[in-house]
Amino acid sequence: SIDGQRLWSSLMAMAEIGPSPNGGSHRLALTEEDAAGRRLLIEWCQALGCTLRIDRVGNLFLRRAGKRDDLDPIGIGSHLDTQPKGGRFDGVLGVLAGLEAFRTLEDHGIVTERPLELVVWTNEEGSRFAPAMVASGTYAGEFSVESTLARSDRDGVTLGEALAATGFAGDMAVGEPRLAGFLELHIEQGPILEENHEAVGVVTGVQGMRWFDVTLRGQSSHAGPTPMRYRRDALAAAARLIDRLQGHALADPSGDTKVTCGTLEIDAASRNVVPGEVRLSIDLRHVDEGELDALEARFERELAAAGEAFGVTAHSERIWASSVVSFDSGCIDAVERTAKARGVPYRRMMSGAGHDAVYVARVAPTAMIFIPCRDGISHNEAEYASPEHCALGAQVLCDAMLERANI
Amino acid sequence: SIDGQRLWSSLMAMAEIGPSPNGGSHRLALTEEDAAGRRLLIEWCQALGCTLRIDRVGNLFLRRAGKRDDLDPIGIGSHLDTQPKGGRFDGVLGVLAGLEAFRTLEDHGIVTERPLELVVWTNEEGSRFAPAMVASGTYAGEFSVESTLARSDRDGVTLGEALAATGFAGDMAVGEPRLAGFLELHIEQGPILEENHEAVGVVTGVQGMRWFDVTLRGQSSHAGPTPMRYRRDALAAAARLIDRLQGHALADPSGDTKVTCGTLEIDAASRNVVPGEVRLSIDLRHVDEGELDALEARFERELAAAGEAFGVTAHSERIWASSVVSFDSGCIDAVERTAKARGVPYRRMMSGAGHDAVYVARVAPTAMIFIPCRDGISHNEAEYASPEHCALGAQVLCDAMLERANI
Ligand SMILES: NC(=O)NCCC(=O)O
Ligand SMILES: NC(=O)NCCC(=O)O
Repeated sequence: SIDGQRLWSSLMAMAEIGPSPNGGSHRLALTEEDAAGRRLLIEWCQALGCTLRIDRVGNLFLRRAGKRDDLDPIGIGSHLDTQPKGGRFDGVLGVLAGLEAFRTLEDHGIVTERPLELVVWTNEEGSRFAPAMVASGTYAGEFSVESTLARSDRDGVTLGEALAATGFAGDMAVGEPRLAGFLELHIEQGPILEENHEAVGVVTGVQGMRWFDVTLRGQSSHAGPTPMRYRRDALAAAARLIDRLQGHALADPSGDTKVTCGTLEIDAASRNVVPGEVRLSIDLRHVDEGELDALEARFERELAAAGEAFGVTAHSERIWASSVVSFDSGCIDAVERTAKARGVPYRRMMSGAGHDAVYVARVAPTAMIFIPCRDGISHNEAEYASPEHCALGAQVLCDAMLERANI
Repeated sequence: SIDGQRLWSSLMAMAEIGPSPNGGSHRLALTEEDAAGRRLLIEWCQALGCTLRIDRVGNLFLRRAGKRDDLDPIGIGSHLDTQPKGGRFDGVLGVLAGLEAFRTLEDHGIVTERPLELVVWTNEEGSRFAPAMVASGTYAGEFSVESTLARSDRDGVTLGEALAATGFAGDMAVGEPRLAGFLELHIEQGPILEENHEAVGVVTGVQGMRWFDVTLRGQSSHAGPTPMRYRRDALAAAARLIDRLQGHALADPSGDTKVTCGTLEIDAASRNVVPGEVRLSIDLRHVDEGELDALEARFERELAAAGEAFGVTAHSERIWASSVVSFDSGCIDAVERTAKARGVPYRRMMSGAGHDAVYVARVAPTAMIFIPCRDGISHNEAEYASPEHCALGAQVLCDAMLERANI
């Protein structure tokens, strides 16, 4: 059995690094805070005798030797970076539950057949460097190493420069080591488990998601003397677009249509200037790829209509798409078996969020485990998962990992 | 007759200070650029023998002696500060046309009965320090000197600190000198004159305006797993508010209802985070005070409804109100007589923009002169007024000033 108290202490210790004002975490990818979090984890793992390797996009692989080191290892893990005002569990739990599993094996002197790799994927959140999951995506061959290193944040700092600055520019080839399986524990980040009084989600796949950069160009003019009918107000067009997309998504009785505008910037904004140019982001999600196509078409139509209504030119660019993912049935079954064996209420479910497991699933048999988080809140300082649920999730992870590592 | 070519040269020379990428000007109030513009004007005026006085809120008074220096002077002028991406005429024309009038009197050896004061009002735009026209408002007793000096920009720098940093913290009491009259030439900043092929606007007053700071507080959450019906999306509420207010203003057949949202900021914005908090500004204007009251009530209703629709708390604060202004009939008539005498098509009209004349009108007989600007565009780098219209405006200003200064 894993030690739930010890797991909770590690979670709280990690939360001391880059604490945010209202009890959350602020460790944007490859900032000094993120680097400090990584160093703490490495220290903990090296104390267990694990060996560290870092690949060229900064992914950390902390290896615990197996009886058969010629076999491909089983990977567990997640990410340590957070949103600008993020929570203490998103990503961190998956990493520290892996650490707790290693500590438990150590306590009992257990050596698995296959070696184990605790993995920390770089820049999962996509908040500093778009898109999300870019380094697990590079590991899986979705993005080239060069393009990933060249991605830049809003200050123009590239991911490669940030790796060098923080000391995490490794030299292992990206794609190494090959994994015989990958398991990621994560908080659900939504309200479904809590609402249904279930303790574990056996994650069967991940909804599809597409990200767009939108630019609306009208004409800035003076808020006082410019008659309404003369205006070409880029923000009015943006507001129309957002309001229509909200209406469309809210009207879907299945609840599967999801639309978010998370960023919006007005060029040279001033109280008494009609906005001339607005840039915003749109995030579209759906569990069905065909429905996601239809949603994208709807978005493009609403965008064109909003532009036309306000005399504003509208341009959108799809900067990222992640297809609907189905996880490996062997791994899903292993997770389900262990949840059942622990006697807790669980459900099979799709993930609403993207996770590193999305990309890893392309190159290794993969599944995920969810636990509930309070009020379904995540990407928020108030994010919370109970010590009991964290411990249960770590136990299921440890059990399923042992099953896969002894095959 | 004034020298239109010389006026144009001064306008273009001033535009060299703080030039913006697309041919406009960037001289936010009391920045190094604004200070450089002020120094250039002072140099020009001192070459004509004018004397400089600066009051405690940085207003510049450049005096040309009259025959009767015991009489209160006639003031002319406007402002030199610009919007972040502003034009080369807004404010600047009123100041440099005053300079051109002084140069013309000098050329012809004319000394007026009353002294003349060329005035540069500090921070007219309200873009760096809200509200607009804050220093002419202080001159007129609307704001206390202390409160004006304490107003701060978005970096927390106060107006008083910016005055000290640029060397424009004067020691003359604010309210000095009393003016026997004030005339302000300005571009219309709207399309009415151009549309009606008129060359001069005889400005009879200024529409009322009210500024609001709005805060919408919902709950940030993850864009992927958070079902639409669970969200408390502050940006969705903001978009609803803006869209409804646009619809309301556009539906007014008189065209007198004006609504602008010029700034909008999302707290800790991220592509995959449902916005938890949004702050925005609202600018409401109308030529009728009662209708402006009704517009404010409508805005408050739409704000409450938008908040309720998205589970977001809505708060608004009125940070500035400027009532509908009627200028002095004697000054209006003087402007009209000179426009008529020059034989150009003109119209009596209300100003859509606030100007320093709004506040000066409380303490001195005041009127304004408008000239057309291309496509009615202002608060924009593309702002343009023809050399002919600038010269005509300066001529009317000079004529009306002479009439008032010889009474
Ligand atoms: N889990 C998580 O926050 N992933 C970021 C990618 C996404 O937006 O779903
Ligand atoms: N003329 C001008 O731009 N004034 C600023 C105040 C306003 O917003 O009307």
